[in-house]
Amino acid sequence: MLSQNQSKHIRSLHQKKFRDELGLYLVEGDKMVQELIAQCPAEVEQVFAVQEWLNRHEKWLRNARFQVTQVLPAELERISALVTPNMVIAVAKIPVVPLQPQLPSLRTCFYLDGLQDPGNVGTILRIADWFGIPAVYCSSDCADIYSTKVVQSSMGASFRVPSWKTTLDQLITAQPDIPVLGAVMDGVDVFKQKLPATGILVIGNEGGGIRPENDCKLTTRISIPRHPNGKAESLNAAVAAGILAAMIPTT
Amino acid sequence: MLSQNQSKHIRSLHQKKFRDELGLYLVEGDKMVQELIAQCPAEVEQVFAVQEWLNRHEKWLRNARFQVTQVLPAELERISALVTPNMVIAVAKIPVVPLQPQLPSLRTCFYLDGLQDPGNVGTILRIADWFGIPAVYCSSDCADIYSTKVVQSSMGASFRVPSWKTTLDQLITAQPDIPVLGAVMDGVDVFKQKLPATGILVIGNEGGGIRPENDCKLTTRISIPRHPNGKAESLNAAVAAGILAAMIPTT
Repeated sequence: MLSQNQSKHIRSLHQKKFRDELGLYLVEGDKMVQELIAQCPAEVEQVFAVQEWLNRHEKWLRNARFQVTQVLPAELERISALVTPNMVIAVAKIPVVPLQPQLPSLRTCFYLDGLQDPGNVGTILRIADWFGIPAVYCSSDCADIYSTKVVQSSMGASFRVPSWKTTLDQLITAQPDIPVLGAVMDGVDVFKQKLPATGILVIGNEGGGIRPENDCKLTTRISIPRHPNGKAESLNAAVAAGILAAMIPTT
Repeated sequence: MLSQNQSKHIRSLHQKKFRDELGLYLVEGDKMVQELIAQCPAEVEQVFAVQEWLNRHEKWLRNARFQVTQVLPAELERISALVTPNMVIAVAKIPVVPLQPQLPSLRTCFYLDGLQDPGNVGTILRIADWFGIPAVYCSSDCADIYSTKVVQSSMGASFRVPSWKTTLDQLITAQPDIPVLGAVMDGVDVFKQKLPATGILVIGNEGGGIRPENDCKLTTRISIPRHPNGKAESLNAAVAAGILAAMIPTT
């Protein structure tokens, strides 16, 4: 059983303000909570689960170093940020890791410039996790990386791919000679030019693209050409990020 | 002002059952409704809009051949399927177009095998609309193409790219020699093999992939290789579809 205070505490983590204040966030569902526990055991603070989940994982839960609380399905529904909660919710610590601005010199990293859709941000973390992209940097106005929608749509990538809020300037200052690529509507055809293996790849806001103060820092402006019969105004930002990530050389 | 019956009628279109029964669906928001009216004028049946929208479009609305009803913001909220409705909702006729199974011989088309996330289906329509893919065929258990989420995430592509519910068998029967490509986990590297310009490209369900009875029909199994440092289990289905669509030759 959950006390009213516990419910309130967990539900407060649906809001960025309280996540920032408490340094905590939520992870939901059987698969995702298992991934969290496997990838970031030290960050798990509490787990709230229905009987079925506790029975299923009884063995290893005995040695768990975090608090486990059984809840009723109706209680789970009340604290969940999802429309259809799935057996378990974990409260996890937001990792505090100092900015590593040098990762783009290992392999091209994403810089997300004002990406507001949490589904897009989560999907881009997943893309990074597939294509071995070492980091995802975000402008301060991007969807919060610790919102439930970002965490869930990253499918576990948010536990593995480091991400930081920073400015493009700060990354460039750390390594002034790094290539800065940007996905734009009027750039060079990405299929006709080999991308550099190291650098920063800027993905712009869903509606407005890359903002002018970052656009002027680009060393290469690239585009995914539209087919002559194509009529769409643009591609979804995460789809564009996926196509460009696929074009980054492996070595 | 909306009568209770009108509200009920519109809200019933949030459900597939009633969309199928009435042959109607909803299109929401300023930009999308304008696109609908521009692309499919004959399909618009009714428009419900707030004062501001009616003022903005007053001139050409005078010649509109559909019924226009002014609603209060609170009424719009009640009939909308969106969390934040945007000024206008149109009721449109679901077009009845006989299956055209021969489009894959013009240029490679998508076949969606049990794609359940409406955001993915809409995003794939948008991808088709960008890359000049002539049609998107869907298995009967795909997310409904006329659900609000699919329509909205297609960003207008659902007005331009024809799509049908059909079986893969039916498409193959219509042209037995057509290449049938499928996105799978253990196929040949898509970056090492040129894709055919014509054919069917099968995208499988988010969790389960392509179902066995379709998998055995594939003439070429292709994969987007994971980077050696990558840890993600899979790519998002729409992102994978976008990467593969980008690899279909233009001519």
